[in-house]
Amino acid sequence: MLIELSVNDFCNELASQSPAPGGGSVAALSGALGAALAAMVCNLTIGKKKYADVEGEMMETLTSAADIQQKLMQLIDADTDAFNAVMSAFGMPKDTEEQKAARAHAIQNATKRATETPMDVMRLSRDAMQLTGVVAVRGNQNSISDAGVSAIMLRSACEAAALNVRINLGGLNDTAFVQTTRNEVQSILDEVSDLESRIRSDVERKL
Amino acid sequence: MLIELSVNDFCNELASQSPAPGGGSVAALSGALGAALAAMVCNLTIGKKKYADVEGEMMETLTSAADIQQKLMQLIDADTDAFNAVMSAFGMPKDTEEQKAARAHAIQNATKRATETPMDVMRLSRDAMQLTGVVAVRGNQNSISDAGVSAIMLRSACEAAALNVRINLGGLNDTAFVQTTRNEVQSILDEVSDLESRIRSDVERKL
Repeated sequence: MLIELSVNDFCNELASQSPAPGGGSVAALSGALGAALAAMVCNLTIGKKKYADVEGEMMETLTSAADIQQKLMQLIDADTDAFNAVMSAFGMPKDTEEQKAARAHAIQNATKRATETPMDVMRLSRDAMQLTGVVAVRGNQNSISDAGVSAIMLRSACEAAALNVRINLGGLNDTAFVQTTRNEVQSILDEVSDLESRIRSDVERKL
Repeated sequence: MLIELSVNDFCNELASQSPAPGGGSVAALSGALGAALAAMVCNLTIGKKKYADVEGEMMETLTSAADIQQKLMQLIDADTDAFNAVMSAFGMPKDTEEQKAARAHAIQNATKRATETPMDVMRLSRDAMQLTGVVAVRGNQNSISDAGVSAIMLRSACEAAALNVRINLGGLNDTAFVQTTRNEVQSILDEVSDLESRIRSDVERKL
């Protein structure tokens, strides 16, 4: 599994001649890093006298951030698996009409799945960004730059995942699915951009 | 070393109660991922008949991207080391006037070093973004979304590193150094923002 590789080996594997892992797995990793930083700020707030009045909120935020982090970490491998499934479908035989039909069907299914993984990255990163908004305002203010970096990584996760959704949508025939997905991509990008601007200006003010 | 941890353990260590690694190491990792994706697009271009006319340029770009990637990977640990050195300086004894002066001096030195690591992340990520500009335009167009993700991760690396420079500048007395550094931060952020917009609009058009 990719997440069992060392950071060193993961980066080298990414750079290598093999097309997977690629940008889709990096999007999921960026989201996991952003969620992990939100969890870190919770951990650096809990147990501090100065922040006793937000302890309950930080415990809840930590639980949610840690859960999202684990899900995003799983999507690092899921995205590469989904990409490889598309490649396998393209590699199916196409000598007879029957084979051509089976291949076309498999390509459509695998490509649809390859849009769903980055859509999940987008949804989870958006949810994590809401948690980052909480820790930036009420978490340990000594960690304010970490909250800022969390927001940056989560926005990147969404934008990177959006590119991976769009490139796969181009190959799909199910126009209703394509339109619904395009709308959701735009809606999450808009929401995340608003959240990030608000968090970033709060962080910049406190630096 | 942090880069010897698995991706899984690195994310969990990031989320933990210990303040390091934090946003500074994530900035360096984001840059390494962006440079690695630029290198990947070179690797997926070299040797392809269709791209024979840019083979030489892609070989040179690959060498540069791989070099920057390795340097950014080293900065993942260097940033955490620099942060820990600041913490150690703050932990020095301050009972006598002599101790107070030695501690203040050590804090200034360690904090200055803690601005230099993220400055290097910014400079290297800016250099990598120029390479991403090359691969987005003339590299393998099947990997266009990877070039886009590369640009996203490199912009994030710069923005995240900038937060870490700024939070450390706040603690420095050397006003000339502070002003020069603030100017360089703003100049790199502007340059990177321009480069990223150009690459992103090129990628969006081709998706």
